[in-house]
Amino acid sequence: MSPKAVVLLSGGMDSATTAAIARDQGFAVHALSFRYGQRHAIELEAARQVAEALGLARHVVLDIDLGAFGGSALTAAIDVPKDRPLAAMRDGVPSTYVPARNTIFLAFALAFAETIGSTDIFIGANAIDYSGYPDCRPEFLAAFQHMARLGTRMGSEGAPLTVHAPLIELTKADIVRRGQALGVNFALTRTCYDPSPDGAACGRCDACQLRLKGFREAGFEDPAPYAIRSAGTAS
Amino acid sequence: MSPKAVVLLSGGMDSATTAAIARDQGFAVHALSFRYGQRHAIELEAARQVAEALGLARHVVLDIDLGAFGGSALTAAIDVPKDRPLAAMRDGVPSTYVPARNTIFLAFALAFAETIGSTDIFIGANAIDYSGYPDCRPEFLAAFQHMARLGTRMGSEGAPLTVHAPLIELTKADIVRRGQALGVNFALTRTCYDPSPDGAACGRCDACQLRLKGFREAGFEDPAPYAIRSAGTAS
Repeated sequence: MSPKAVVLLSGGMDSATTAAIARDQGFAVHALSFRYGQRHAIELEAARQVAEALGLARHVVLDIDLGAFGGSALTAAIDVPKDRPLAAMRDGVPSTYVPARNTIFLAFALAFAETIGSTDIFIGANAIDYSGYPDCRPEFLAAFQHMARLGTRMGSEGAPLTVHAPLIELTKADIVRRGQALGVNFALTRTCYDPSPDGAACGRCDACQLRLKGFREAGFEDPAPYAIRSAGTAS
Repeated sequence: MSPKAVVLLSGGMDSATTAAIARDQGFAVHALSFRYGQRHAIELEAARQVAEALGLARHVVLDIDLGAFGGSALTAAIDVPKDRPLAAMRDGVPSTYVPARNTIFLAFALAFAETIGSTDIFIGANAIDYSGYPDCRPEFLAAFQHMARLGTRMGSEGAPLTVHAPLIELTKADIVRRGQALGVNFALTRTCYDPSPDGAACGRCDACQLRLKGFREAGFEDPAPYAIRSAGTAS
C-alpha cells in the first residue's frame, strides 16, 4: 500500500503541481482545501477538479471562519493591487496577506496527517518569485516542522514528520515546466486574487502577472481563461 | 488603553485561572473558545459564564470541524478512562489526546492576535500533574512561539510575540489557590471529560480526579456539581 501524504490544495497552479509531485513520489495523496471566506471561492471548484483529474485518493474541504475575528485584513475587504511592477511586489508584506493563514492550514494538515497515520505534509509554498509572505519562507516551514514533531503523539514517539515544500526554490517558469512534465492540467487551476463572476482571471493582480510571466518564460500558453492578459509589466 | 491579550478559554479551571492571570497583569482579555464536536460541549456554556464573570473584553467562539478527517481518536468515540490511579495517568499519551488540537487552537489564537494587534497569547497548559499531552509541554510552546514569530507579519517585523503559559509549572493545588486569590468562581468551570446531561462532572475521569485532588490539597471545597466525588484513588 502506498504511504499517505496530506497535500494542501488551493486550486492554484502551485498546489496542483505540488499534488502531482507528491503523487509522482509514490504517495497516496489526501488533499485538503479550506472554505474561509476568500473572495476567490472559485478556487475550491478548481481544487475539486484538480483532485479529480489527478486521481487523488481523497479531497477534504474544511470550513473555517477567519472572519469571526473581524479586521478588514482578512477577506472580503482586501483591495487587490493591479498592474504592479515586479519590484513593488517584492517590497514588504502584500496587502493580500491573511494573518497566520498558513499556520492554520498546516495545523489542520497536521491533524489530518496524524489522524490517517501519515508523516508527510506537502505545501506549495514558493519563496522565489514572490517572497513577501512571511508564512511562505523556508525558515517558517522548518520551524513549523520542528513544532509539529514536538506537539503530536506521532512526533513525540519519534515519527519523522516532514513538511515538504518542493516548489520552495523554483521560479514560476520552473513550476510550469514541472507541472507540464507531470501532466497537470493547468486549464483547471485558478490563481487570480480577483476573478470575474464567470471565473476568468483578472490578468492584472500580482498572482496573475507572475503566473503569466511564468508561462511566457517556460514557453507555454496558459490555458486558463483570462479577462485581460497583462501586457507584461511584470517582465 | 490596556494592551490586548488573546486567551484560550475552554471553560475548565485551568483556562479560567489563566484568563484571570492575564486580566490581573493588565491585559484586556479577548477570549477564544472552540466548538469542535467535543462531547463535553457543556464547557462552552461554562466558558461563556466564566468570560462574563471575569468581565473579559470579548469572547469569540469558533466552529471547527475536526470530525471531517474521520478517525475514532477525535471526539465522540473516545473511551474516557475512569478511576485510573495517578501513576497510570502519567504513562504515555492519554486516549483523550486529540491530534494537533493545541496546534490548531494556538494557530487561531495567533490569527486573532494579529488581527486585533495583540502580541500576547495565553494558554492554560499545565505540565506538572498530567504531562501526557505532547502539546502541553513547555518545549512545544516554545517551538510554537518561535514558529509564530517567523510566520506572521507582526513577528517578521520584529514584534515580541509571546505565548504565555502561566500554569505550566504549577500543581493543580497551586492553580486552585491562584484562582481563588484572583476571584475565579470555580463553580462556573467545567473540567470533566464525561459530564452527565445535566452538566454534573463524573468525578471519576482523569480530569475530575486531578481537579478534586487539587482542591483537597489546597484545602478548598470544589464548588462545581459532581455525580460522584472520587474516593481518592488519585491521592
